[in-house]
Amino acid sequence: MAGEEGQGGTVVTPSAEFPPLAEEELATLRGIGARWRAGGRRGELPVDPTLGRYRRRPPGRFGRLAPIELFKVEEPDELVATEPANLPGSRWGRAVTRLRRTLFGPPLSSAAVLYERMRKLVALPVLSSDLLSSVAYGPEAMLSVLVLAGSGSLGLSLPLAAVLVVLMVAVGVSYRQTIRAYPHGAGSYVVAGDNLGTGAGLAAAAGLIVDYVLTVSVSVAAGVHAVTSALPGLAWATVPLGVLVIAVLLAGNLRGVRTAGNIFVVPTYAFVLAVVAVLVVGWLRAAGRGFAPVPPPAVPAAEGLGLLLVLRAFASGAVSMTGIEAVSNAVPAFRPPEWRNARTTLGWMVALLVLLFAGLTVLIHLDGLVPRPGETMLSQLGRVTFPTGPWYALLQVATTLILLLAANTAFNGFPRLLFFMARSDHAPRRFLHMGDRLAFSNGMVALAVAATVVFVAFDGRTEALIPLYAVGVFLAFTLSQAGMVVHWRRRRGAGWRRRAAVNAVGATLSGLVLVTAALAKFTQGAWLVVLAVPLLVLLFARVHRHYATLHRALALHPPGAGPAPTAPAEVPGVPAEGEELPQQVRHLVVVPVARLNRASLRALAYAASLGQPTLAVHIAPEEGEADRFRQQWAAWGDQVRLETIVSPYRAVIGPLAHYLEALHASRAELTLTVIVPEVVLRRRWHRPLHSRAEQRLRSALRALPGVVVTSVPVHIAE
Amino acid sequence: MAGEEGQGGTVVTPSAEFPPLAEEELATLRGIGARWRAGGRRGELPVDPTLGRYRRRPPGRFGRLAPIELFKVEEPDELVATEPANLPGSRWGRAVTRLRRTLFGPPLSSAAVLYERMRKLVALPVLSSDLLSSVAYGPEAMLSVLVLAGSGSLGLSLPLAAVLVVLMVAVGVSYRQTIRAYPHGAGSYVVAGDNLGTGAGLAAAAGLIVDYVLTVSVSVAAGVHAVTSALPGLAWATVPLGVLVIAVLLAGNLRGVRTAGNIFVVPTYAFVLAVVAVLVVGWLRAAGRGFAPVPPPAVPAAEGLGLLLVLRAFASGAVSMTGIEAVSNAVPAFRPPEWRNARTTLGWMVALLVLLFAGLTVLIHLDGLVPRPGETMLSQLGRVTFPTGPWYALLQVATTLILLLAANTAFNGFPRLLFFMARSDHAPRRFLHMGDRLAFSNGMVALAVAATVVFVAFDGRTEALIPLYAVGVFLAFTLSQAGMVVHWRRRRGAGWRRRAAVNAVGATLSGLVLVTAALAKFTQGAWLVVLAVPLLVLLFARVHRHYATLHRALALHPPGAGPAPTAPAEVPGVPAEGEELPQQVRHLVVVPVARLNRASLRALAYAASLGQPTLAVHIAPEEGEADRFRQQWAAWGDQVRLETIVSPYRAVIGPLAHYLEALHASRAELTLTVIVPEVVLRRRWHRPLHSRAEQRLRSALRALPGVVVTSVPVHIAE
Repeated sequence: MAGEEGQGGTVVTPSAEFPPLAEEELATLRGIGARWRAGGRRGELPVDPTLGRYRRRPPGRFGRLAPIELFKVEEPDELVATEPANLPGSRWGRAVTRLRRTLFGPPLSSAAVLYERMRKLVALPVLSSDLLSSVAYGPEAMLSVLVLAGSGSLGLSLPLAAVLVVLMVAVGVSYRQTIRAYPHGAGSYVVAGDNLGTGAGLAAAAGLIVDYVLTVSVSVAAGVHAVTSALPGLAWATVPLGVLVIAVLLAGNLRGVRTAGNIFVVPTYAFVLAVVAVLVVGWLRAAGRGFAPVPPPAVPAAEGLGLLLVLRAFASGAVSMTGIEAVSNAVPAFRPPEWRNARTTLGWMVALLVLLFAGLTVLIHLDGLVPRPGETMLSQLGRVTFPTGPWYALLQVATTLILLLAANTAFNGFPRLLFFMARSDHAPRRFLHMGDRLAFSNGMVALAVAATVVFVAFDGRTEALIPLYAVGVFLAFTLSQAGMVVHWRRRRGAGWRRRAAVNAVGATLSGLVLVTAALAKFTQGAWLVVLAVPLLVLLFARVHRHYATLHRALALHPPGAGPAPTAPAEVPGVPAEGEELPQQVRHLVVVPVARLNRASLRALAYAASLGQPTLAVHIAPEEGEADRFRQQWAAWGDQVRLETIVSPYRAVIGPLAHYLEALHASRAELTLTVIVPEVVLRRRWHRPLHSRAEQRLRSALRALPGVVVTSVPVHIAE
Repeated sequence: MAGEEGQGGTVVTPSAEFPPLAEEELATLRGIGARWRAGGRRGELPVDPTLGRYRRRPPGRFGRLAPIELFKVEEPDELVATEPANLPGSRWGRAVTRLRRTLFGPPLSSAAVLYERMRKLVALPVLSSDLLSSVAYGPEAMLSVLVLAGSGSLGLSLPLAAVLVVLMVAVGVSYRQTIRAYPHGAGSYVVAGDNLGTGAGLAAAAGLIVDYVLTVSVSVAAGVHAVTSALPGLAWATVPLGVLVIAVLLAGNLRGVRTAGNIFVVPTYAFVLAVVAVLVVGWLRAAGRGFAPVPPPAVPAAEGLGLLLVLRAFASGAVSMTGIEAVSNAVPAFRPPEWRNARTTLGWMVALLVLLFAGLTVLIHLDGLVPRPGETMLSQLGRVTFPTGPWYALLQVATTLILLLAANTAFNGFPRLLFFMARSDHAPRRFLHMGDRLAFSNGMVALAVAATVVFVAFDGRTEALIPLYAVGVFLAFTLSQAGMVVHWRRRRGAGWRRRAAVNAVGATLSGLVLVTAALAKFTQGAWLVVLAVPLLVLLFARVHRHYATLHRALALHPPGAGPAPTAPAEVPGVPAEGEELPQQVRHLVVVPVARLNRASLRALAYAASLGQPTLAVHIAPEEGEADRFRQQWAAWGDQVRLETIVSPYRAVIGPLAHYLEALHASRAELTLTVIVPEVVLRRRWHRPLHSRAEQRLRSALRALPGVVVTSVPVHIAE
């Protein structure tokens, strides 16, 4: 726990992009500094870097906007960029920025990071929308499988529901313990990684990533289905409606929908109330007829009632439990004592889940309803229970809203997970970056793209997505609970055996569901997840390996003892890129000159002003042109040593790059500075009129060791 | 004439990309050189730039290939790049180059530019394939219009053909004079531009460009039609066949199909012989029945026989004259005396054209043939004339081949025209560049792309393309002949009145055809050309204006008198980019540092080694991070002045660019050198793992005046 805290723990901060240096790195830094002899005159800057005297800038490029203070001085030695300083310089860039700000709002300062604390009555709806919304499609998912064996087998839903209730309670109790043990946040990635090793953590993360993507896809699909159940005329527009909903969710989250806003409170409680009303009215009515079940309409069996079918039905029903882990991720967001409040909230949530899930399953059985395409079971139940009046419409509205909120929770969880993974170098670093609005915009966009792809690929059909859903979630559950067993064994605190046993039960039951779901629904689509999870783990591992190589390559080493610690000249081709001290850098400045004009003369003047040995190179297509160029050079006074190379095949970039490579090979400790005159055009349509030789030269030289490229721009006014 | 010669005239040379300096520019250069005080130690280079001692390079990046001499020393002071030196360094680039060389052959040395001279018997087929191939579709184009007024009006083809023959002779005589007057090449672009002004030259060029594109499209369409007339089963594949043919023509020309090859001789003479055979046999047969015309099958009239229809038929028939200008473009390719040989060849060509055109038109009338879709008239005539035996097949093969050769001539003319336009700054400079195979590959690709677009847009139907064809050609004819009139008037040599009169007749007749074609076929598609030509002229003018601005901006000016001739500091925002002398450059080196690692320390060491005032800048997202970074900086020993900027909105590029701009605004004569550490990755798939901050920074800084950007690379081995 303490170790976690030290490494930043669950604290989300914009500074995560700038990790601090370790103590040995600081020591190396001191060693390097001690041997450093800078050539520059320390402190004698030709300008005031604090801009102190230039705070009120005269109108320059922003002339139209009148003087704007782009920087303010806060401490004596520190500038703070104000908001206009973020605007890009180009007209096109400014237009894009303005459009973005209109859509998503002005940027928020880092100081606005909120560490809000929730009380339990707010935390309950915020954290339970994902879990409770699952009952809108969970029972139906189970019955849709059972009905394949004919309406006679629908009665099996009761014992299956009983087993699921046991599972819910077991996993709930198991997570209560996890919350106590990880008060700083008990995400499966952290718990499994801490206790079972990086591989398990990555597997849990992969499961969660699949789960988050499917949460969005399934919730949006179910929400759209709730709408089309009430308004069947809209059924054709399922896919565009779903894509629109995901886009709106993305836009809202990029703008920054505050998780703790009241928008969560009303729909969640409304949904709970609406379902409870359905349950009360339905049960009263059933009591009126002595709880005699209405016989369901006869549905012919499409498959035999085998064990596999029952297991599939069970695994499908288990999706009702998705979202149960939400509290454990969010422990630090509770008011103190955090872990106790979180634990209480989790208890309420599980109790509500059991009530709604069991109540609905039994009521559906009593009313003799069967799944049918085109209308959700909750909608059928609503129509039966409230044949008249606005109640049915209210139920559907509440269902739709809570499903959309459930999708929204993934927009909080997914980028946070990627942030933690990126902090441990398992995901691209850009997921560390907080966007304009202090949200992890990159993660949100990634989630929206992935969810849209899945949604469109499955035509927005909830029943087709369900088989993929359980595998990822239960993988994360299992690994997290198994991690807790190891946790207790390692700690061996008071009562650790009992605690380990509780988590072991949770892990075992979750593991059973996981295996059941993966096997029973393998051919229905679960194979996709079974394939995706190891591929994702492999990808994360490769990403980690790359960053590790990079860290090693960029790590600070104490400088060598001699004056030239770089690769010896006898081994050309080896990059001479060790740490260098200023006094060790040996320069050769090379200026490629195509013709003598203002641009190339500026580059030559710049090169000569550096006061280092300088060589100009001209590539000529023919001997005659080379002679002509040498005459011009002589007319100029032969100020810089010129080397002409005849390239009879008229290529310029290739021979120049090979020539520089040959120069470098002849003295590997040299730093070649290639100074390229660059004509900067103002208009985009002028670019095809130029050869982009500078860019091509730069990309050809990038690969060469010890070659520094300098662009000296000349701006064309028009 | 002499002036033309002096500016390179019609000589095509790879050095055209490097125009020589004017005398006043050389004088300016001498003035600049006299005031130049280089800081560098002249001549004391740390390496031998001639590579003299390193000719046998030890195995470096090309280790696998064993030592290769990438450069050879020819003169004491000059290197010549050998062919392997053109290979790009990256693996991907080398693979592409190797594929290209397999397809198009190894590169050719500049020394291989051939100035071949043709004797008349070779020049005739080479230059006449475009012209003579027109009779394969010209008479048909005329008859297809006439037949719209019913088969009764087909007889009008005889008087129309007579008028066209007069026109052919008049234009031919007119061009004979042009050849004499412009022995160095009398392209319409040159003649019209010289005598009537740039606008007229550009209009002629636009007409020719449209003409070249249509020559390819029409010839390929007619050639494919000749094939499908013989083999109707292939009719469905017209469009893919045509695209394939254009691709093969492009590939062949990129590889370098020598214009003077024997491949031109055989098909052209074979075509002439085949058509003459048709004429002889057909006329003998007609003589057998006393030249009594076979009555054509009755075709109902679709339109009334108005003046407009007759004019349309006339304009359509005039496409038989396309290609008549070929000789005048190619005068320098003849053996001396060039103009006399060229004139003789032109005479033969026109005589052959008149013979074939008039003969075919009359024979078609005698045999009572009518145009019908699916089979060309020449094919019908062949079937009637040679009912049995291989003669019909030979005729079709010869027709197809000459049409393809005609398309091929455009691949010579179009890039040459663009070369001349680019040399006078009216077309993008890349058309000056001779590719690997000494061909103007950029122009060839542009032609193939344009012709393919036109061909596909018109479904490869010859009759749909014909209405577009005549306008461009006759515009060029008219302007060129009108230019000749002005030419004679200016010269006022012996007999200038007679000569001017001949050209005036040619210009008037061509102009009449031009107006007729543009008006009569306006709605059939000529409007496209009427629209395209002025748009092209506008485009050329804009291109010229851009290059003119560029030349002015890059022209050499004598350096100012004072020590700081740049924009005064009181006017910030004005680019301080006048010519500078080395002793006038005032440096400030700025190193943006995100974190302290090997990459940033190398950049700092490089910066310090330059011995100029140096400033490091760190952009922090939060105050706390800024403090932490300053501590690291102090641990290193505070070797370089550091300025931290807090960017509370977490943007890095924007505030940094604005900060540099503010620094520059405070002393406009400063040259800011921004030294950016750049991590170079070896694998492409690693790039998404990095933020591309260096590239984004570079493009943000490009727009700033007086900011030089230096990339110090660190190569990651893996």
